[in-house]
Amino acid sequence: MINVSIIGATGYVGAELIRLLKQHPNVNITVAVSKSFAGKTLGDIYANFIPAKTLALRDLDLDVIAAHSDYAFLCLPHGQSLSVAPQLLSAGLKVIDLSGDFRYDDTDIYEKWYGLPHTAKEENARAVYGLSEYYKNEIAKTNFTANPGCYTTTSILALAPLLKNGLVKTDGIVIDAKSGVTGAGRKESLAFSYCETADNFKAYSAVNHRHTSEIEEQLSKLSGNQIKLLFTPHLLPVKRGILATSYAELSEGADEASVAQAYADAYGGKPFTHVLPCGKLPELKYVVGSNNCMIGYDFSPRTGRIIVVSCTDNLIKGAAGQAIQNFNIMNGLDETTGLPQVAWYL
Amino acid sequence: MINVSIIGATGYVGAELIRLLKQHPNVNITVAVSKSFAGKTLGDIYANFIPAKTLALRDLDLDVIAAHSDYAFLCLPHGQSLSVAPQLLSAGLKVIDLSGDFRYDDTDIYEKWYGLPHTAKEENARAVYGLSEYYKNEIAKTNFTANPGCYTTTSILALAPLLKNGLVKTDGIVIDAKSGVTGAGRKESLAFSYCETADNFKAYSAVNHRHTSEIEEQLSKLSGNQIKLLFTPHLLPVKRGILATSYAELSEGADEASVAQAYADAYGGKPFTHVLPCGKLPELKYVVGSNNCMIGYDFSPRTGRIIVVSCTDNLIKGAAGQAIQNFNIMNGLDETTGLPQVAWYL
Amino acid sequence: MINVSIIGATGYVGAELIRLLKQHPNVNITVAVSKSFAGKTLGDIYANFIPAKTLALRDLDLDVIAAHSDYAFLCLPHGQSLSVAPQLLSAGLKVIDLSGDFRYDDTDIYEKWYGLPHTAKEENARAVYGLSEYYKNEIAKTNFTANPGCYTTTSILALAPLLKNGLVKTDGIVIDAKSGVTGAGRKESLAFSYCETADNFKAYSAVNHRHTSEIEEQLSKLSGNQIKLLFTPHLLPVKRGILATSYAELSEGADEASVAQAYADAYGGKPFTHVLPCGKLPELKYVVGSNNCMIGYDFSPRTGRIIVVSCTDNLIKGAAGQAIQNFNIMNGLDETTGLPQVAWYL
Amino acid sequence: MINVSIIGATGYVGAELIRLLKQHPNVNITVAVSKSFAGKTLGDIYANFIPAKTLALRDLDLDVIAAHSDYAFLCLPHGQSLSVAPQLLSAGLKVIDLSGDFRYDDTDIYEKWYGLPHTAKEENARAVYGLSEYYKNEIAKTNFTANPGCYTTTSILALAPLLKNGLVKTDGIVIDAKSGVTGAGRKESLAFSYCETADNFKAYSAVNHRHTSEIEEQLSKLSGNQIKLLFTPHLLPVKRGILATSYAELSEGADEASVAQAYADAYGGKPFTHVLPCGKLPELKYVVGSNNCMIGYDFSPRTGRIIVVSCTDNLIKGAAGQAIQNFNIMNGLDETTGLPQVAWYL
Repeated sequence: MINVSIIGATGYVGAELIRLLKQHPNVNITVAVSKSFAGKTLGDIYANFIPAKTLALRDLDLDVIAAHSDYAFLCLPHGQSLSVAPQLLSAGLKVIDLSGDFRYDDTDIYEKWYGLPHTAKEENARAVYGLSEYYKNEIAKTNFTANPGCYTTTSILALAPLLKNGLVKTDGIVIDAKSGVTGAGRKESLAFSYCETADNFKAYSAVNHRHTSEIEEQLSKLSGNQIKLLFTPHLLPVKRGILATSYAELSEGADEASVAQAYADAYGGKPFTHVLPCGKLPELKYVVGSNNCMIGYDFSPRTGRIIVVSCTDNLIKGAAGQAIQNFNIMNGLDETTGLPQVAWYL
Repeated sequence: MINVSIIGATGYVGAELIRLLKQHPNVNITVAVSKSFAGKTLGDIYANFIPAKTLALRDLDLDVIAAHSDYAFLCLPHGQSLSVAPQLLSAGLKVIDLSGDFRYDDTDIYEKWYGLPHTAKEENARAVYGLSEYYKNEIAKTNFTANPGCYTTTSILALAPLLKNGLVKTDGIVIDAKSGVTGAGRKESLAFSYCETADNFKAYSAVNHRHTSEIEEQLSKLSGNQIKLLFTPHLLPVKRGILATSYAELSEGADEASVAQAYADAYGGKPFTHVLPCGKLPELKYVVGSNNCMIGYDFSPRTGRIIVVSCTDNLIKGAAGQAIQNFNIMNGLDETTGLPQVAWYL
Repeated sequence: MINVSIIGATGYVGAELIRLLKQHPNVNITVAVSKSFAGKTLGDIYANFIPAKTLALRDLDLDVIAAHSDYAFLCLPHGQSLSVAPQLLSAGLKVIDLSGDFRYDDTDIYEKWYGLPHTAKEENARAVYGLSEYYKNEIAKTNFTANPGCYTTTSILALAPLLKNGLVKTDGIVIDAKSGVTGAGRKESLAFSYCETADNFKAYSAVNHRHTSEIEEQLSKLSGNQIKLLFTPHLLPVKRGILATSYAELSEGADEASVAQAYADAYGGKPFTHVLPCGKLPELKYVVGSNNCMIGYDFSPRTGRIIVVSCTDNLIKGAAGQAIQNFNIMNGLDETTGLPQVAWYL
Repeated sequence: MINVSIIGATGYVGAELIRLLKQHPNVNITVAVSKSFAGKTLGDIYANFIPAKTLALRDLDLDVIAAHSDYAFLCLPHGQSLSVAPQLLSAGLKVIDLSGDFRYDDTDIYEKWYGLPHTAKEENARAVYGLSEYYKNEIAKTNFTANPGCYTTTSILALAPLLKNGLVKTDGIVIDAKSGVTGAGRKESLAFSYCETADNFKAYSAVNHRHTSEIEEQLSKLSGNQIKLLFTPHLLPVKRGILATSYAELSEGADEASVAQAYADAYGGKPFTHVLPCGKLPELKYVVGSNNCMIGYDFSPRTGRIIVVSCTDNLIKGAAGQAIQNFNIMNGLDETTGLPQVAWYL
């Protein structure tokens, strides 16, 4: 058994991570940190945990964490990981950070889009971007993984094979993404109240959502071209799930066969990323509850464009599940250990 | 009082039309036709009408309709209006058709996208496209209005001012549209069952939805340029409402001022089409329950693109309400008579 | 035109009241008071009002209200009306109070269940309980109406005819009520957030909800017997609507005919309260969006009990609509003026 | 590994059973039967199974089933199990039937409430009622388990401890139950369409739902008293979950301590049935996604009544999960093997 600490146990991602780890055969959760609810149990906050034996929630104490765990999962708001992750690494822990703080190669981009000085550039240089479909070897060797964002995961997995293989033009890409409300986290807020959100639908951060920069940096890196794209998120009246509809202009000569081949090359043996046959598009219910990303595509010969639809569960493949996937890789376990491979559908 | 018949009274659009007309001060519904439910009352099918005095539902009988009404609203599936509308016109009625049968100038386009021979080309040539924001004068003089589609209304109102004024390029336009489930109509269907639709989201008819052709014909006509665009509808887990997110490349020199001016010119005095200040985007709840279309826009200087978000209630401005708006215009009434101008919000 | 002020214009009930009054042919809203948002317009808070010409929101100023209006609708939290209503009455206005402050004949009951001293007992003695199905004559003559609670309206209308006619036993009545989330009002709250409320269902205030006491006082008064009952509210994942399922033991000799007669006697000519035939039970969608209350009932001979299901829209018949109904009566207008009589259904 | 067949693999219960069994460490699904979809794969019908290796769906062939499996789970409509279960038993398989066909000791009750002759009375006499909280020893020894109904499980677990210990009166019990839509199964139906179900709520089968008789037989048997009660189901606009609110009159001397003791005695060591402290009531989100039943209660001294709220996931503890629990017991496995113990919450 591997002992792990969860830092930020009572946000939606932290709670989902603990729910999933309870089913992991190799994990023992030794410390669960919540500044807001130290002294309570997880079942006090999330009554679904009452039937499970839950640890007491504690305040953040690095000595306790270091003494009782080998791994730390950081489910903190961005900015906070900047100071916590380096301390845990110094204390000899392996760290999986789920915030945006260590996801960028170029910290200037981080500073610009997050509006914060990056105060841990040395650790940042060592962090591996935890998108296992592309960086599995690096993840296997690191002690510090930066888990990708939910929109980012969903978008990159859809577009990277096309861009890497030059099948679409680099200019004019549009990603129209739609997310469930858990993506906004656990908060008291009128904007995310039931009455203001149910039966509603809206775009937000239409031209300047932070994940734009993460998508662009990764797609540029993976394709070897400078990618600038338009990413527009929307808020769906559902709790979980992201569906991204991406539009791109096909390159000369790109056709169904070459697109199918590019996806097969990229995800052929991958356990959690599944590409449907041309013309069949995934729906949220195909993935919600699982660690899967499903991808479908279709062609519009009239306009010379390809449309790609990709779906994930934002709390699982977009956050907690992908973190466990990375944990498995870091530990030499089978990538799928303890992770749900069949979505709920209902 | 103007006597009207409703043909197809028990579909969702027909029922919504009757609900709205019950509040119209100048209308008397004399005949309500439903082939499936002839002999019953509307309250038998839609119990919300029990408190209202509802007419008995009758089978289709042109003599009865002609004897008792001056106007007929046709809420029939496409294909059926092709035969019914000409007969009603011959009988001297004024007709507002809510199907797709008479919306095209070019019946070849209709035949190609609907897969049906157009058997009433003469009447088609006389039909006026009922988008009052652009054809009010023609509507005022016609006895035959073809009411626009729901996706079409929402898309055209968003894009026409930009295209007419050359503010965006004609190539590469993407409309990513999302509709509530009432758009699919009243039907026994697993795909539209609660369990398969709630908490779900999906794209459908991703590259070949019929409304694409209607949008293209109208935008081409209004702008004087041949427009080809990519229109992709999605199914939202809500009952009512369409939100369309449109993406277009800005022309040289187009800026916030010129865009604002184009919208002001187009919709300045219009009672139901409202443009928000740059950067403020409408949400479904701003319009659902009303006959309004709300439009917002924002600029992405990084990619040289404009994003336009437009919203309507698909059953009202996208169908029954717009039909009443056209009816008002045809009768010289104030355009807003009997129509809801404030959305429900809750 | 009758000039009215709305005090508490930006809560959900206040906004709904303004939405409805916009369609009222005899009403002119002259003052809209919101302490929180004074200086803004209603459209700033509820964007559905942008297309309407909305008054500026003002702080509470009795002189302004008195100078510009004949009626005041009070949409304030309980406790606040205790001081505001007497001042408005003194200033010569007619007042319709939508809070719980003046609903009780016996202020001791108010003080016990609301935990507040009743500081306006004199005015309380003059207030008429605004349930027009039972107190229409009194409402027609008063200048001060206390609008009933939403759960209360739905429950009393279901049970009063049975109790008045001795058709059910006074002991052992259970009301299992289910309400939409707007009943909780506009608030920043985790408990009413989308993520905690959607796909969920729960009981709350299971044995001690305040409306219990209002239901009991009214049913006791109307039946001439001391009624004690068990009222348990639940929170539905819908925005609007209350459905109450009431269970009572039938008296000796009570049968379908006597029950049908009792309901016919009670609501025969009433415009907004509709009783369905025995065995047909109303659903939320039959009433939501309208000022109607629908009632259905069925018999369980096996257990000697009757079950009564009653539905209303909590914001309309349960609050704003009933207030307008009372306003109409107070002004000698037709009771239905300006009020929606057909529910949305979709 | 134990080889099992699933008969009725493409209904909602069958699909959920397969989803859960995929995570069971001791189970190998060898045959999946679907008459409607023989020749397809499960992933063709439920795309969430695409990432899993799914068996081809076959027509019902007893020889194949007998040759390849030791256990059969029957997820068939009632009536069909009557003929299939005896054949499988004769072929030497152990059978867990999820229909209502073998749940009654008294087949007269079955015949009366289901309107069918019971054609397998011999097998019925051998069937064990699969409510492990009360019949674990019998389940451990049988080769034929009749899995309880969803409403029944939720209701019996709430009330049996009170009735067994004489803490409530046997007369006048009311169970007001609310279920998610999956309880109605996979079907093309207007009544269960999204548009007719979302934002709606209704009672149905208000005084004569079949589960009434199953609840009564079991509660009578467990308590030693003849129980007649009023059970009224309602349809919630959620996909999963049942919440039952039960009302009963307290017996003389029953108090918080005796009630708490009765529940502790009944469920103290049980892995899936959890009783909350007095006054804390469970919500759907505490159980949906898990095999748990959660129970809470509160007292109304004013009326001398107790209210009990119980929740389950109708597809798991109410069907597929409880079937696996019984399977575990029949095989001498730990009762919790392969079953989710923490609900999704989000």
